[in-house]
Amino acid sequence: MAAQQSDGPADPVFGITLPPGYRDWTLITVGTVGSPVSDIRAKLANPLATTAFRQGTIPYPDGSIIVRLAWRQTMSAENNAALLHEAFLQNVSPAAIEEFLNGTIAAGTPTNVQVMVKDAKRYASTGGWGYAQFTNGQPAGAAVGTSCFPCHVLAKSTDYVFSRYSP
Amino acid sequence: MAAQQSDGPADPVFGITLPPGYRDWTLITVGTVGSPVSDIRAKLANPLATTAFRQGTIPYPDGSIIVRLAWRQTMSAENNAALLHEAFLQNVSPAAIEEFLNGTIAAGTPTNVQVMVKDAKRYASTGGWGYAQFTNGQPAGAAVGTSCFPCHVLAKSTDYVFSRYSP
Repeated sequence: MAAQQSDGPADPVFGITLPPGYRDWTLITVGTVGSPVSDIRAKLANPLATTAFRQGTIPYPDGSIIVRLAWRQTMSAENNAALLHEAFLQNVSPAAIEEFLNGTIAAGTPTNVQVMVKDAKRYASTGGWGYAQFTNGQPAGAAVGTSCFPCHVLAKSTDYVFSRYSP
Repeated sequence: MAAQQSDGPADPVFGITLPPGYRDWTLITVGTVGSPVSDIRAKLANPLATTAFRQGTIPYPDGSIIVRLAWRQTMSAENNAALLHEAFLQNVSPAAIEEFLNGTIAAGTPTNVQVMVKDAKRYASTGGWGYAQFTNGQPAGAAVGTSCFPCHVLAKSTDYVFSRYSP
């Protein structure tokens, strides 16, 4: 069973398009990736995949879709002003304030959107998942799509999915 | 108009309960807060508030609810193994790898859930918003609820909301 697809442009390797409505899907987890990637990211999943995440269903059923959003790390002066206003930062040292601010990140400009689509038969040669990346709605070239599976194979025991559901 | 409320325990200041179904609401944005808070967090919003975020509607309409999830920052050995496997880290220095790993955070144990509910009349004395915090479903004491507005007043120009929608 193929997952519902949008009418937008498809990636050249797996034929995946940006799925309709994905931006309103359930949040699975969040993370950051350090320099030189330096992003802050969120994983969303469609209802089928969300249920599998929550129940620990392995393998994920056909039709599961996982989307990774990411943004440049930025510092929010407004956020920091508010946070420094909090009581716990009263009477603390400049070094402690610097450490606090250095660890405080807001989401800036979006980078790209990555998509995993489960179709055990169609994508049998890559663990049953197809992979695609979109920047401003445009799919990346074939070199990007083929670069995903060599890392995801490390997560074979969890059906090639690195993310865990964060309650 | 009061927002839909669950049957769980209400906070003692604003009478807010954990809203039903909030964990499936739309992701607004993500962030981290530095030491000593050291968390990674996500803001979700109900459909009414999500539309206001996306359209830049100020003030937010009555019934808007914003939820802040947060988790302890953790390092995922599995994530890191995969990330280090990526081509961009081939032939880089140990110092660069250390910087990369230090900036790479996964979501660990959940800390608490904070909720903002818009009701311009009921919560007129605190900018039209009520504030509550829940740990394992239990509301915090009055000291926590009353500590929210003194910071949120700094965001008066955006109806006391710090978050911006991250596309």
